[in-house]
Amino acid sequence: MKKGRVTLPAQEGMDEEIKQIVKRWGADAVRDSDGTKIPDVIKQAADKVYSKYFFTRGDQEFAKANLDELQHMFIMSEPVTATEEEIKIPILKGYFKEQLKPDTDHDPKKWWQVIDRTTGEVVSCDKWEYLEQTEEVLVKSAKLWHRYTVNVLVYQLWDPVHMYNHITNDWTTEHQMPYDPRYPKTRAYILERLRTWLDEHPDTDVVRITTFFYNFTLVFNDVREEKYVDWFGYGATVSPRALEAFEKEKGYALTAEDFVDEGYYNSPFRMPKRAFLDWIDFQSKFVSELAKECVDIIHSYGKEAMMFLGDHWAGTEPYGKYFKNIGLDAVVGSVGDGTTLRMIADIPHVGYHEGRFLPYFFPDTFNEHNNPVIEANQNWLQSRRAILRKPIQRMGYGGYLSLALDFPDFVDRVEEITDEFREMHDHVKNTAPYVAPFKVAILNSWGGQRKWMSHHVHHAIWYKQCYSYYGILEALSGLPFEVEFISFEDIKADGISDDIGVIINAGEARTSWVGDDYWKDPEVVEKIRAFVQCGGGFIGVGEPTSHEHQGAFFQLSDVLGVQKEIGFSLSKDKYNDHQIENHFILEDQVAAINYGESTRYVYQASEAATVLDIEADDIKLATHTFGDGRAAYLAGLPYSPENARLLKRILYWTASKENVFHEWHTTNIYTECAAYPEAGTFVIINNAYEEQVTQVTKPDGTVLDVTLAPMGYQWFEI
Amino acid sequence: MKKGRVTLPAQEGMDEEIKQIVKRWGADAVRDSDGTKIPDVIKQAADKVYSKYFFTRGDQEFAKANLDELQHMFIMSEPVTATEEEIKIPILKGYFKEQLKPDTDHDPKKWWQVIDRTTGEVVSCDKWEYLEQTEEVLVKSAKLWHRYTVNVLVYQLWDPVHMYNHITNDWTTEHQMPYDPRYPKTRAYILERLRTWLDEHPDTDVVRITTFFYNFTLVFNDVREEKYVDWFGYGATVSPRALEAFEKEKGYALTAEDFVDEGYYNSPFRMPKRAFLDWIDFQSKFVSELAKECVDIIHSYGKEAMMFLGDHWAGTEPYGKYFKNIGLDAVVGSVGDGTTLRMIADIPHVGYHEGRFLPYFFPDTFNEHNNPVIEANQNWLQSRRAILRKPIQRMGYGGYLSLALDFPDFVDRVEEITDEFREMHDHVKNTAPYVAPFKVAILNSWGGQRKWMSHHVHHAIWYKQCYSYYGILEALSGLPFEVEFISFEDIKADGISDDIGVIINAGEARTSWVGDDYWKDPEVVEKIRAFVQCGGGFIGVGEPTSHEHQGAFFQLSDVLGVQKEIGFSLSKDKYNDHQIENHFILEDQVAAINYGESTRYVYQASEAATVLDIEADDIKLATHTFGDGRAAYLAGLPYSPENARLLKRILYWTASKENVFHEWHTTNIYTECAAYPEAGTFVIINNAYEEQVTQVTKPDGTVLDVTLAPMGYQWFEI
Repeated sequence: MKKGRVTLPAQEGMDEEIKQIVKRWGADAVRDSDGTKIPDVIKQAADKVYSKYFFTRGDQEFAKANLDELQHMFIMSEPVTATEEEIKIPILKGYFKEQLKPDTDHDPKKWWQVIDRTTGEVVSCDKWEYLEQTEEVLVKSAKLWHRYTVNVLVYQLWDPVHMYNHITNDWTTEHQMPYDPRYPKTRAYILERLRTWLDEHPDTDVVRITTFFYNFTLVFNDVREEKYVDWFGYGATVSPRALEAFEKEKGYALTAEDFVDEGYYNSPFRMPKRAFLDWIDFQSKFVSELAKECVDIIHSYGKEAMMFLGDHWAGTEPYGKYFKNIGLDAVVGSVGDGTTLRMIADIPHVGYHEGRFLPYFFPDTFNEHNNPVIEANQNWLQSRRAILRKPIQRMGYGGYLSLALDFPDFVDRVEEITDEFREMHDHVKNTAPYVAPFKVAILNSWGGQRKWMSHHVHHAIWYKQCYSYYGILEALSGLPFEVEFISFEDIKADGISDDIGVIINAGEARTSWVGDDYWKDPEVVEKIRAFVQCGGGFIGVGEPTSHEHQGAFFQLSDVLGVQKEIGFSLSKDKYNDHQIENHFILEDQVAAINYGESTRYVYQASEAATVLDIEADDIKLATHTFGDGRAAYLAGLPYSPENARLLKRILYWTASKENVFHEWHTTNIYTECAAYPEAGTFVIINNAYEEQVTQVTKPDGTVLDVTLAPMGYQWFEI
Repeated sequence: MKKGRVTLPAQEGMDEEIKQIVKRWGADAVRDSDGTKIPDVIKQAADKVYSKYFFTRGDQEFAKANLDELQHMFIMSEPVTATEEEIKIPILKGYFKEQLKPDTDHDPKKWWQVIDRTTGEVVSCDKWEYLEQTEEVLVKSAKLWHRYTVNVLVYQLWDPVHMYNHITNDWTTEHQMPYDPRYPKTRAYILERLRTWLDEHPDTDVVRITTFFYNFTLVFNDVREEKYVDWFGYGATVSPRALEAFEKEKGYALTAEDFVDEGYYNSPFRMPKRAFLDWIDFQSKFVSELAKECVDIIHSYGKEAMMFLGDHWAGTEPYGKYFKNIGLDAVVGSVGDGTTLRMIADIPHVGYHEGRFLPYFFPDTFNEHNNPVIEANQNWLQSRRAILRKPIQRMGYGGYLSLALDFPDFVDRVEEITDEFREMHDHVKNTAPYVAPFKVAILNSWGGQRKWMSHHVHHAIWYKQCYSYYGILEALSGLPFEVEFISFEDIKADGISDDIGVIINAGEARTSWVGDDYWKDPEVVEKIRAFVQCGGGFIGVGEPTSHEHQGAFFQLSDVLGVQKEIGFSLSKDKYNDHQIENHFILEDQVAAINYGESTRYVYQASEAATVLDIEADDIKLATHTFGDGRAAYLAGLPYSPENARLLKRILYWTASKENVFHEWHTTNIYTECAAYPEAGTFVIINNAYEEQVTQVTKPDGTVLDVTLAPMGYQWFEI
């Protein structure tokens, strides 16, 4: 059994057990977690020691001495309907008062806003007062029956990740307050404290930066439950000082409403607004500059700087334009599935990538009512196929090892997984896998700035409104295609690159993932129509290209061959009559296709469309040709091995590349093949929990029969 | 067995059979149909003879001699995507050339339009040519990859109802062409022809006007199937002459696009535009004036004028402001269900109402593969409960009696139905039924102008997108409530009347039935909030009050207590935690509620909301209080006896009138009671196909046990 590529969470009081696990899992690095320390004896057993480091929390003395430099946030009060002309709005109703506190050090009349949500008008400052005693805003001449909200600037009294860990684990420690390096005193302090800490941690090899400076948005409610979470949020990055600097740099001022955004807080599902994009740019520049200074200091101590991706990455977006300046050695992130694996593995400008696998060793999973092996298997099956496409170099686990050790089956299974992970690297030898001879582009409003992040609220968590689209990413994360993420602005500025074979547009109407009013931008539809006409492929999922305009809801119904009835054309008779059952796309389907939440009221808009699947008169799957190109429509695509295969076929068909479909293709839908021509090796994996028999076709046409154990794999030489 | 109140369709060649049927069904009137004549001997057997009369078709000689006075229509060509700078658009592609012909007598450059549907711009006239030979429009400098359509003024070569009857019955007669009385020659001619016809029909008692002048919109496609049908359409009422008169009268000109409406043709599901409302007004005034002239002539011959409602009522809308001027004696309409029954029965300003029941005696129903009794029973059960609310005075059937006589069970069943119908009138004695002590108002963009017509495409035909809302009307048609239809403009102008207890807003986002951007009109929401606050009830079904604005999709989420997630607030945690199982509203439900197409992603927006039903985290039924008033949300309400009961309970609850709910209430959900205090009588009906046992509570609290035969009924004295 070999050793390496694996990081273990260590803790005090179980030295012997840890040594055993280090051996069994082949760990070459150990790490601490929020609330744990690594004993010296364990440090010596590992090649590398990772130490977590928090820049903007952890020193309560400093925080308490500088309460005016705590981090801020803009929040919106719950709306109040005016039943009288004088109304009082309790600004923190429903919020967690241990987390947030109104900032009255800065003039509320300047930084807060009262908005009439019935009209959208900002209420003039002389018409309201803040009643500090009761934490209410008094609106003095409200319009009867209008709804009012208050945008409030608050201090963060509790670092949200510390709060989450604290509440989840029933800690009783002091609440850590986050301080803001936008303020010179804090900035100077965190740099100085970093040096001190580095001085005091000679054993540390890798500084695991479990935050740079600003957290993603996480807000709790008055019963200590999650109220709002946005992995991509910048709500927690504001401050009067930053806002003033923004105005100076960008030439215009932002208001609270630019962040509150009607209560939607610039969710990534919103069409991104100029002000928000400018703010991301502004804060990313600031964060990357200070982060670089920190990383340089770490390097000056001969240590590596590794950023944890996930909690505190506001301003350090790894696909943003300033990320490369930071000079990180590595990124580590939580691997929830294939998509999040790729989100980590595709990050440019770092030396290596590490995945922290699930389950996290926390009591919500490791308890007598649960079998953690189930989650471990699912996590591994979904991420393994993505690793074979784009490897991470290291893996690891997090939390309290003591909890995991109570589950021997889990320890056994992780031993197998870590061995399999190392074996992959031995075979692949840093070479690239075989991919189809065309690129696949996901088209949305964020494009390459947020690669592998579409339809994502946070941490690969399942959302009813997302899974039917997120499944496209999850399928692609392990399919043999090079995947690009392009934005409408990319298309407008640069057109569509020649190497793109197929464009996918997926999601619900109005969202940034579909693109909303970009679809009435002539430049966008002109370029996409030209692309398909000249042989390109286009796949629409859900409500693709949707924006009600000039008699069409799907703007590219001429390309897709289908349209959605939104109630205005019921008078028009629909004849979904060109239905067929046999098609290249359907060749592997043996059961009804699962479209997830699906889409209804889609009908055949072109006589030339071919309906491949229809339920209760709603088209679920259809194809169409447009010029020399091809298009397909799908009502939804949750991830499953069956649907990954379906998507693979749709991609080859829309790209008009069926002729090379069979290269390195496996017949059994539950198996997949990854080939590494340069390394002269290929692997067949079994994505199912049962034994599978499959055939794989090599490029020379020869066919190999393979039998794989449940969740198994087998490596071959080409 | 009594006689009266029944009209029979008669035809030649079966005199003896008809006499028998006249006796068995108690018919006191006979009528002809499109394509039949009444023999003299039959005329003598009836008290009254109805003769159909077509004003604007039937005289082919006149039509042929005046081809320039044929009726017109605006149509939109199929869109063509420009793959070159010169494109040719086949203007009649997909249309039925036996029905329509481009009008080139009037300058196409003046009356037609070429529109760039990518931008919405009208293409300047010098940039396109009509190629008459090939019926194409040549666009000379099209923008590449834009979509273009042509709005074309066409002549109608075939009266659509004649076309429908002709094709359905495989007739071989000449195609009847419709002529337009907007032209003075035709106008003079139809008046003269009416007099001649009246002279020639001394036996006729009732002139059954099977059209006034303009048809609803019915367009066929190139394979002789229905392409477009709009019962409420004014597409077939246009002409250059009328458009010029409109400009003179209203002070502004309309273009083809005002009618084509991006290809939606002003469907009643569209938010009505000023231009379209002005056109309805303009044409209704013209039609009513000429119709009055015709009716006066009919009266001068001592005959009655009865209008058939349904096919040719463009301009004679019975709830429009000019209808009363026409001076009709009666209206007859097709009864598809309770809703269409009420649509007929509620018509003001006529002496009596007649319902033509289903099935129509046409070969599509009366054939060896079908049992027409099934449709007759369903039709009777749904309309009976509505008749008990608002009676029609007469009933009848249509089509070819010869077809019906081949089905003895059908003849038997109609004998029972006609007896039951007469018995009702004997008991009710023209008195009003007991109703709840509050009115129910349906709020939509059309209001009282289109009573009982919401969510209706044509003729009570089932549409997947409609039935979950249409069911509200169908339930109400037979429930003990006075129902009003109010518009947003009514509310803005006059407020909400004191006698209204509950307002219902139902339908899908964007449609006229919900009201779209009326919901961001402060006046509307102010008045409704005030109404509920002061004790009013509000019921939302589907996507009520929906218009994305200022952070809310359901604008009245504060009233309804629920909101719909449209993707922008996924980051917000949803706690649908106030769920209960026992509630006044649910007391009669024994099985899962059927919400039809239902609505998804609805969540609890107020802590005070009570969730009565939830499926897969989507709220399906909830209640909420707002001030002194109450609100309820429902995901959909297709018609069924169960759902009619559910709605009855929701109405009493939201009106805060549970205390009087039990008056004349039946315990068994499949039975209903109608009481006529003034006549001292009440009836219990069985809406099911099986025997039912029920109890009814009289206002004095006494309870009566009743057992009813399948579909049965029983009358009692109070």
